[in-house]
Amino acid sequence: MSRVSDDFLYYQVAERLEHMVEKGVWKTGDKLPSVRHLSREQGVSLSTAFKAYSALESKGLIEARPKSGYYVRCKLRRQQAPPRAPRYTAPPEGLSLDDMIATIYTNLTEEGVVQLSLAAPGHELLPAAKLNKCLLEVLRLSPTSCLQYENVQGNAILRRQLARLSFNWGGSASAEDVVVTQGCMEALSFCLQAVTRPGDVVAIERPTYFGLFGLLKNLGLRALEVPTDPLSGPDLDFLRQAMKKQRIAAALFIPNFNNPLGSLMPDDRKRELVALLAEQEIPLVEDDIYGEMYFGKTRPRTCKSFDRNGLVLYCSSMSKALAPGYRVGWCMPGRFRKQVLQRKLAHCITSPTPTQSAIARFCETGRLDIHLRNLRKALHTQCLRYQQAIDDFFPAETRVSQPQGGYVLWLELPEKVDSFELYRRARQHQISLAPGQIFSTRGCFRHHLRLGFGNPYGPEIERSLQTVGKLVRELAGA
Amino acid sequence: MSRVSDDFLYYQVAERLEHMVEKGVWKTGDKLPSVRHLSREQGVSLSTAFKAYSALESKGLIEARPKSGYYVRCKLRRQQAPPRAPRYTAPPEGLSLDDMIATIYTNLTEEGVVQLSLAAPGHELLPAAKLNKCLLEVLRLSPTSCLQYENVQGNAILRRQLARLSFNWGGSASAEDVVVTQGCMEALSFCLQAVTRPGDVVAIERPTYFGLFGLLKNLGLRALEVPTDPLSGPDLDFLRQAMKKQRIAAALFIPNFNNPLGSLMPDDRKRELVALLAEQEIPLVEDDIYGEMYFGKTRPRTCKSFDRNGLVLYCSSMSKALAPGYRVGWCMPGRFRKQVLQRKLAHCITSPTPTQSAIARFCETGRLDIHLRNLRKALHTQCLRYQQAIDDFFPAETRVSQPQGGYVLWLELPEKVDSFELYRRARQHQISLAPGQIFSTRGCFRHHLRLGFGNPYGPEIERSLQTVGKLVRELAGA
Repeated sequence: MSRVSDDFLYYQVAERLEHMVEKGVWKTGDKLPSVRHLSREQGVSLSTAFKAYSALESKGLIEARPKSGYYVRCKLRRQQAPPRAPRYTAPPEGLSLDDMIATIYTNLTEEGVVQLSLAAPGHELLPAAKLNKCLLEVLRLSPTSCLQYENVQGNAILRRQLARLSFNWGGSASAEDVVVTQGCMEALSFCLQAVTRPGDVVAIERPTYFGLFGLLKNLGLRALEVPTDPLSGPDLDFLRQAMKKQRIAAALFIPNFNNPLGSLMPDDRKRELVALLAEQEIPLVEDDIYGEMYFGKTRPRTCKSFDRNGLVLYCSSMSKALAPGYRVGWCMPGRFRKQVLQRKLAHCITSPTPTQSAIARFCETGRLDIHLRNLRKALHTQCLRYQQAIDDFFPAETRVSQPQGGYVLWLELPEKVDSFELYRRARQHQISLAPGQIFSTRGCFRHHLRLGFGNPYGPEIERSLQTVGKLVRELAGA
Repeated sequence: MSRVSDDFLYYQVAERLEHMVEKGVWKTGDKLPSVRHLSREQGVSLSTAFKAYSALESKGLIEARPKSGYYVRCKLRRQQAPPRAPRYTAPPEGLSLDDMIATIYTNLTEEGVVQLSLAAPGHELLPAAKLNKCLLEVLRLSPTSCLQYENVQGNAILRRQLARLSFNWGGSASAEDVVVTQGCMEALSFCLQAVTRPGDVVAIERPTYFGLFGLLKNLGLRALEVPTDPLSGPDLDFLRQAMKKQRIAAALFIPNFNNPLGSLMPDDRKRELVALLAEQEIPLVEDDIYGEMYFGKTRPRTCKSFDRNGLVLYCSSMSKALAPGYRVGWCMPGRFRKQVLQRKLAHCITSPTPTQSAIARFCETGRLDIHLRNLRKALHTQCLRYQQAIDDFFPAETRVSQPQGGYVLWLELPEKVDSFELYRRARQHQISLAPGQIFSTRGCFRHHLRLGFGNPYGPEIERSLQTVGKLVRELAGA
């Protein structure tokens, strides 16, 4: 925050809020985040947060209610001007890890297997009873019991709630910007389809989430793997050189808690990436599925928040935050919204009604915020416990990431260890792992391992980590 | 049935049943359909149905329980042999109509509009309370409240129930043959992707469901429109000639209650089509979404039931039968199962858990059969009421189809009427229609109209049809 004067900051926060109220993201009578919450989430001082609210109050847009907080006071006339790009800058965070699905997909529903390969929450971390309650409520409230087709773009209440989430990552989206999809994968798929043609080259990170290789292949796209650093994210110089040599149709990056490396791209690098791609009008598909699972004080920003040209197609999902099995994802495709909607219409017409409605209600009633706070705490604790166990059970030369968010640890094992062999041996002990090799098309990361810490730490996990540590020692010949 | 000796028939029915018991579609202790039910659904005499069961009983596979019915007696050892192609022949049905979604998609969720354009059930026809109950039950029964990822291929109980449905259309599918999708459209999309490459030519009917044009376009496929006759279905001579002139990568037909024409392709033509395509190993994507909505005595057969080479990719959905908003569809992709699964994995990993589970339970508890019987009766009645209204309110020269199933009527209006203009004027009266032009890429069917009768007939519908009739007279200059 030191780089920007405090006066300027409060003005920017106020301006974004005003913009989102105009767009109907917050409506008349809605309660706004507390000053403390605003300060924490936006990474500004309490006095700045207070000044922002005061400014809006003096404009008559919001009102303070004693012992309750700030509320939206009146509905602004909607302006037809295009959304203004936010200029507010959050502090750069350190580095962190992240990750995604796990082991081999067919193990997804296998029983009796300890899933150390999943980049997803164990079911103990999910608010099943509260979400069930929301589902029952919407079944009762819906005139057709959620049996009829939903709006093609997605449930309107849900889209408004998803637009709200953008406030915390430095955005100012409106419900109209959001398209609901079947998980984040379908969002990535539609976005890629909207900006590429078969035969095109798409820049991805190395290492990256293995599901992307199948996605690119099925769309007839070729991958350009950009080396990614655990500290600074994708190598922008490499990308710059590559852009000079060949036409790159799009980039697909995971800037926050990258999978599997876990790098958290610093804000200035995000800004630089967006600017670099904009030079050649190259769309960036931004996979932010782990962005909400931060251990630090504030929500990391997104590339989308630096986008002034509508070139960033933001994608995310509720699969990591709330309900993997509900398959509710979304995207904000910027200037490509129409093309994305066309793809969705042609592929599946609409998304399911009851799951969208239930999650909309869960958000609307404020339950998501509470749940996410608990989830972040639990994940942070689990991460530390798993790291301790690796320290206890694995060979001393094992290197392990220090994630500041997400669901996974990235391990560099002793060089002699072949992770595929480790995977095979672990399977015999009913343990599922994600070997490093699957995170690159080139078979790199032979002695690396992605380890998910989504399941709460307990005796079974401890035994499993002990077993894996023993297998690593065997393979290392130690 | 006259063409096949009765002895041969009972043997074929018994053989198919045995095969499905082997595959686990019916399991030990399951109640089999009653003799009367079997007779009606399979279009065989009561004595043939009885003989089929007696044969299985004497083999010790099933047992008769007094005053209760036939039950599967013991679990057969599963055989590894490939499924045998069924040879049983159902009687050819007459002709009929069928259809699909409606008006412009954006009207899907519009309120205050009378939907005469939808090819879908009005919500009064749907068993909302019973399906809600099933959803609550599965939430309670699931150890993770349906929050976790489902099996990639689809919920196992659901797949077994869907395999059972195949028995009535002359098939003998097993749960392993089924892949669950996001509605029928996603099934069509994955199946087309599995058997074509961009640039390929796909044979479709003319007229056909307008959603297919967008689907083909997005997959980079070119359409070859095969003229379709209301009585005999697609013109097989035309197709035969076209196959000589150019490479056709696949065909996508709607043989049962074709949309929008409503033709029910006779069984011998289905057999002929399957054989013709097999000559050049051309896969047939069969859209059977309306197959269960028959008004006659027996379920029409499918092309899939004549397929001996695994070349027919059968697609259907629960959207027309039970719950449009649940988006639960499926396919049985024959020899292309692996490719379809790859596409699904790459696009969205898995389908939503709670909606699949709820429908699985709805089927498992026998509610689907009861519901479908009621739905067919209601649709038949509605169809007759709508036809009567057209007779009353439309100009005398209006020609209207006599559907034997499905959700729509196909109208040929007086030649002077431009259906697009009719659509526009009807919109001003808050009535949504599906003009004939949207059912062909070539702008044919200028004075045709697809009219959905999914909404129960009542005063509002009557007024709307009266209004449309008046608009037609105006445009006809009568």
